[in-house]
Amino acid sequence: MRQRLSVEAYTKGVLSADTIVLSRAITLIESKLKNDKLLAKAVLENILPHTGKSIRVGITGVPGVGKSTFIEALGKHITSQEKKIAVLTIDPSSKKTGGSILADKTRMEDLSRDPLAFIRPSASGLSLGGVARSTRETMLLCEAAGYEVIIIETVGVGQSETLVKGMTDFFLLLMLAGAGDELQGIKKGIMEMADVVAINKADGANKISAELAVTEYQNALHLFPKSDSDFITKVVTCSGLENSGISSLWKLIIEYQDETIRNGYFEKNRQSQNLEWMHDYIRQTLEDQFYENVIIKKALASSERSVKEGNELPVAAAQRLLNIFMQNLLK
Amino acid sequence: MRQRLSVEAYTKGVLSADTIVLSRAITLIESKLKNDKLLAKAVLENILPHTGKSIRVGITGVPGVGKSTFIEALGKHITSQEKKIAVLTIDPSSKKTGGSILADKTRMEDLSRDPLAFIRPSASGLSLGGVARSTRETMLLCEAAGYEVIIIETVGVGQSETLVKGMTDFFLLLMLAGAGDELQGIKKGIMEMADVVAINKADGANKISAELAVTEYQNALHLFPKSDSDFITKVVTCSGLENSGISSLWKLIIEYQDETIRNGYFEKNRQSQNLEWMHDYIRQTLEDQFYENVIIKKALASSERSVKEGNELPVAAAQRLLNIFMQNLLK
Repeated sequence: MRQRLSVEAYTKGVLSADTIVLSRAITLIESKLKNDKLLAKAVLENILPHTGKSIRVGITGVPGVGKSTFIEALGKHITSQEKKIAVLTIDPSSKKTGGSILADKTRMEDLSRDPLAFIRPSASGLSLGGVARSTRETMLLCEAAGYEVIIIETVGVGQSETLVKGMTDFFLLLMLAGAGDELQGIKKGIMEMADVVAINKADGANKISAELAVTEYQNALHLFPKSDSDFITKVVTCSGLENSGISSLWKLIIEYQDETIRNGYFEKNRQSQNLEWMHDYIRQTLEDQFYENVIIKKALASSERSVKEGNELPVAAAQRLLNIFMQNLLK
Repeated sequence: MRQRLSVEAYTKGVLSADTIVLSRAITLIESKLKNDKLLAKAVLENILPHTGKSIRVGITGVPGVGKSTFIEALGKHITSQEKKIAVLTIDPSSKKTGGSILADKTRMEDLSRDPLAFIRPSASGLSLGGVARSTRETMLLCEAAGYEVIIIETVGVGQSETLVKGMTDFFLLLMLAGAGDELQGIKKGIMEMADVVAINKADGANKISAELAVTEYQNALHLFPKSDSDFITKVVTCSGLENSGISSLWKLIIEYQDETIRNGYFEKNRQSQNLEWMHDYIRQTLEDQFYENVIIKKALASSERSVKEGNELPVAAAQRLLNIFMQNLLK
């Protein structure tokens, strides 16, 4: 990482929408160094009064559903209305493989050249909790830099959807027609989080099957309970490739925002997300202190083995590890 | 609580299937007193080699679905085959209201008089984590006392389903025909946990709509991914009142057990549940230490307020509370 800026320089750069400073501020937030963390905290505190004014949209779908093409089409539609859009990604694959499903350099080429758009993949090498944290903070920085729409993109294959749902105002699930096999990759419960399900690639020969899929999903969705937002989950078709259905989908998002601002859910959801965020951070830190403790790390493997094999009660093993931890902490 | 028995007396009583001692051992396990906890731990360690040999069945459904009548019918069917059955309940309502949805004295009158059956509601006044823990340990005691089927019953209105799913081999969801309104009470994602969905009250005039519901749910379920157990979720009808569909449902459960023992999932699932149990206990204890700390209790309300109102970053508030906690701990 290049030389750090001062708190004032980061703050001023972000607030004046300097994308180079914004990028560096995000890198600062992702840093694991203690000094960077202190600096990041000060910057975040400075920009806090300028955050919260965007609509935060989560988008998910399995690899192959056409997320990039779709987001590019949606992004271009939004910037054509003179609105600034930031696209952030949460990519759980980047940690395990070193590579990444989402970090493909050729993605969203067109949108990435748009001066009203800002695209940023999540840092690699972070835990899911770490990614959640840095994405939340990146979102605040982008808002302070005046981005009016924040897209948080993720792959529909893991726990990351729950995280994204917990930090966005609106959740969009992209699906393909010909349900069944495609759904294998979608984690249980994700469909139920969606405010809108969009059947993508509804183009050419796929149009008819996409319309059938709409009916099928609508039938499935009516079995689910109404969301807390009182907004009834809609199923629509679209094509990122042919740029069809994009503007009406964006209208749906705006409609959702208007409706939930009116009925108070928008603010209520944001407030409970903030509380959740605080408690998440507390829990995560307590756990990290435990599991990252050197002595615990050493003791854990044999405890896990004896519990798995039924030689020790889970509770007894847990209590033993906790005693070791407390003794070590108080030393 | 009456005078405690010795570790030996508890152990011997439980292993010889003395239901009075079994009841007292469960009360011991539910106790919050430190000495009782130590005693309970010793008893559990003694009986551990005699546990694990039952089939653990979770049953859920919203109030009004006819759970008691159904479980009574299923229980009688099981005891008619000379098998011993224990019915435990996880009732999240008992904490909040002081009363309880499930603790109705008149429930399962017939089954409760059956010498092969043992019925025990969960203790009131425990947190969800506390209920989970005592239910898991009660399950072990019942297994040590020779109960071959353990039913864990809960109401389909909260987080308790995830807990029950995490401690059972088989998960049964009871539903009613005429989907839609009834589902309002079912928490998102619960349907997807089910190994079997049974449309209850398929009697009299309801029979036709119950058959229609079977088709409807089967259509919805085929959108969900296959379970890790490789067992395809079945939808059936039954009537606790008319005692119909009960024996074929029990056959399905046995079929599930046979199939998953054969393909190795049964054991694999038990092992991962044990590990999960250990880590749950660790996390729960770490959290409890934090949130039950007197200083934290005092500081939390104002932190929550400032975070909710957007005056403080969730992360900053969390870090401040964690610092207070650590200082207090190390004092």
